[in-house]
Amino acid sequence: MTTPSTHRHLLGIQGLTPPEIVDLLDCANTYVEQSRGPAKKGDLMVGRTVVNLFFENSTRTRTSFELAAKRLGADVINMETATSSLNKGETLIDTAVTLNAMHLDALVVRHPDSGAVQLLSEKVNCSVINGGDGSHEHPTQALLDALTIRRRKGHLDGLTVAICGDVAHSRVARSNIHLLTTMGAEVRVIAPKTLLPSGIEAMGVKAFTDMRAGLADVDIVMMLRLQTERMGGSYIPSIREFFRFFGLDREKLALARPDALIMHPGPMNRGVEIDSVVADDVERSVIREQVEMGVAVRMAVLDRLTRERGSPDARN
Amino acid sequence: MTTPSTHRHLLGIQGLTPPEIVDLLDCANTYVEQSRGPAKKGDLMVGRTVVNLFFENSTRTRTSFELAAKRLGADVINMETATSSLNKGETLIDTAVTLNAMHLDALVVRHPDSGAVQLLSEKVNCSVINGGDGSHEHPTQALLDALTIRRRKGHLDGLTVAICGDVAHSRVARSNIHLLTTMGAEVRVIAPKTLLPSGIEAMGVKAFTDMRAGLADVDIVMMLRLQTERMGGSYIPSIREFFRFFGLDREKLALARPDALIMHPGPMNRGVEIDSVVADDVERSVIREQVEMGVAVRMAVLDRLTRERGSPDARN
Amino acid sequence: MTTPSTHRHLLGIQGLTPPEIVDLLDCANTYVEQSRGPAKKGDLMVGRTVVNLFFENSTRTRTSFELAAKRLGADVINMETATSSLNKGETLIDTAVTLNAMHLDALVVRHPDSGAVQLLSEKVNCSVINGGDGSHEHPTQALLDALTIRRRKGHLDGLTVAICGDVAHSRVARSNIHLLTTMGAEVRVIAPKTLLPSGIEAMGVKAFTDMRAGLADVDIVMMLRLQTERMGGSYIPSIREFFRFFGLDREKLALARPDALIMHPGPMNRGVEIDSVVADDVERSVIREQVEMGVAVRMAVLDRLTRERGSPDARN
Repeated sequence: MTTPSTHRHLLGIQGLTPPEIVDLLDCANTYVEQSRGPAKKGDLMVGRTVVNLFFENSTRTRTSFELAAKRLGADVINMETATSSLNKGETLIDTAVTLNAMHLDALVVRHPDSGAVQLLSEKVNCSVINGGDGSHEHPTQALLDALTIRRRKGHLDGLTVAICGDVAHSRVARSNIHLLTTMGAEVRVIAPKTLLPSGIEAMGVKAFTDMRAGLADVDIVMMLRLQTERMGGSYIPSIREFFRFFGLDREKLALARPDALIMHPGPMNRGVEIDSVVADDVERSVIREQVEMGVAVRMAVLDRLTRERGSPDARN
Repeated sequence: MTTPSTHRHLLGIQGLTPPEIVDLLDCANTYVEQSRGPAKKGDLMVGRTVVNLFFENSTRTRTSFELAAKRLGADVINMETATSSLNKGETLIDTAVTLNAMHLDALVVRHPDSGAVQLLSEKVNCSVINGGDGSHEHPTQALLDALTIRRRKGHLDGLTVAICGDVAHSRVARSNIHLLTTMGAEVRVIAPKTLLPSGIEAMGVKAFTDMRAGLADVDIVMMLRLQTERMGGSYIPSIREFFRFFGLDREKLALARPDALIMHPGPMNRGVEIDSVVADDVERSVIREQVEMGVAVRMAVLDRLTRERGSPDARN
Repeated sequence: MTTPSTHRHLLGIQGLTPPEIVDLLDCANTYVEQSRGPAKKGDLMVGRTVVNLFFENSTRTRTSFELAAKRLGADVINMETATSSLNKGETLIDTAVTLNAMHLDALVVRHPDSGAVQLLSEKVNCSVINGGDGSHEHPTQALLDALTIRRRKGHLDGLTVAICGDVAHSRVARSNIHLLTTMGAEVRVIAPKTLLPSGIEAMGVKAFTDMRAGLADVDIVMMLRLQTERMGGSYIPSIREFFRFFGLDREKLALARPDALIMHPGPMNRGVEIDSVVADDVERSVIREQVEMGVAVRMAVLDRLTRERGSPDARN
């Protein structure tokens, strides 16, 4: 049986098997309990170095990875770089090779170009974790979403999950589609036509352009952030119009199951893709839990990659 | 008897009792000796997480808090964010709730709006320390000033302290007024009329617009930084004119007691609010000591809040 | 015999004796082996504080110093400051004095002005390491270059080293000239006339304006980064012209010894001062090794300065 410990990197959800995903979620679950308790620091990564190499600004994700690594005892170094100062392509590799020469254990990379993280991973000896690359994948986000759902619903298979909003530009959507369909959930994507990638059905999902139809009887409503910064020349919806047709409010939410969970990867644009009343729904919104699960999932990923790298004798 | 350990946050000096202030100063005093010695690191906060959330740039204060937390063994994460990128109000809360979900122990917050830190503290479980909010309070600055004075003069009560300069925009002035009057010192504020808040006497201080009159026979001369960036539409004095009437030079200083201490919270505008000869006075300027006391006071605040949070068993 | 342990600072290579240089290289060599092994963390600097004070942006050098200090167990605080926000001169000193009051053990400083680091070192009690000041010195770069060469060639004396390119603006060139001539190597500098400082021969080097003549039979080809940002009003060569006459390509390299090493301090301008084919030459390019040696050399410098500061009892 293949387990996640046979991977050197975590570049995406695509390619992970169900047992690998289950193993990561189980591991993360133990870290949830540990993080809630009084002794929050482990020693698995003492003497190890993790570098957060962020070519896009994301205080939230960087902080979550930094916390995860530090809670395992690692030393963490942050490098935030604007791509504008780099000669694209070649110099990305030079940066990777330079860092690699410093004997890192793990490199967390966020980059605006799809595929950049994979390219970089081919040039280094350390483990590479994709912290989000272009509109390609954001695997730790999908894992934290899955952990949040599983803790609330007890399972993933058989659930109906609607992913709503700016699907076209969303690496969160792609990673979630891979994970949820692999684990036996039914996934729907809901978006205006201009934000719906053509051929998305080939990923095993049902596509809706009518939010009311798409939300009917779903167990999970997963909202996406409207990423106008990624839209380039394509159609940018007016915010008022977008909210009217695709923003999650009480009235649209009423079409989902009564116990449907409300999710959002953050940061939220309140009043754009989600109404504040819904975002703060005490019973059904699990947005805060998602953040908590994020640290635990990142600890689990670092745990598995560290154990795979081995040198157990080094830790004693 | 109320002690500081019954507080969950440190939002301001206002509301602290004399025994609470004395307890913090006593605790800080032990950390001064520890920081001067060879073994500068404690373990009270091992496994704890402190986040420095700074919405205003302040390398100096951030560094002091970072050092204090690390010297207690904590993991420290820095988040420097421009408010411009936030939807004010609502998103401040989202940021706080997000960080809170990551299981922090303490959150140090600096924010340009008075009251923002209090608002944020109501939404989180962790301890919140006000690192300066608008023109409201900067409690650790007042504590470090008090510690500096007490170590030099042996006591606070009965001293006459002049706080001089841009009183209107100064959270340092407000926190110092609260602390010094609570501890039995006599406080005078000296400023041009336009920089003197109306009704300031209600805080229990005497107001002067003539610096020579205000400095007569004082024990402590506390200069403030001229904060032109906070002055908005109001009268901005010419620097030459300001220095002539309200800058501390030898001639004005001669009116204070011969053993008067010279203080400044830094960074100094030499030649604006203070003359270099006075700033560098070997006998009477305690500006460097203030910086040293800053780390010790922040260690004391973290110490008291950490012990109050409890879980002593967690540390063993 | 003078050893490096009698120095309180490392401000430059100039003034170091051959035994001092050898001692640093020998110490660094042991750290190379340690960094390659599984247990990469020491405890020499546990409880000590290192501040990286960078007035110029340099993620690469800062990361290397940060890693080095953390691998010795130190707490590291990063301060990146634009000089533009400072009143030059006086406030640099205030910054130094402020940091000094926080009881640092070592301060790594990078500054755009030659001599600024020395000035600062005179005002503080902690050890100061020059991380590059203007076009003056960059001592850890010269040490890492020397370590790289010595590990490949077995020795430094008797080698012929060509330093090529923007010599005029290069602190790397100056530090390397000091180190290599002190250690008995023959140094040549190769540059267009406008980038060749007048009187450079007084440093004990031979100057060439014809790269082909200069490269003849050298053991080491050390390329410099073309630093157009430092060139001010002087002649800025066209990149195409510069590459044609002074860029390292296969054809020019053929004039050096067959086993000549290719070096570059990074980051490289591929196609400007160096051709990619040469930069990536598996046999002769040691550019990646230079990065690895960088961490080890910085550990050695911190090691020697820490031991000199003493308080051995404090570490037990």
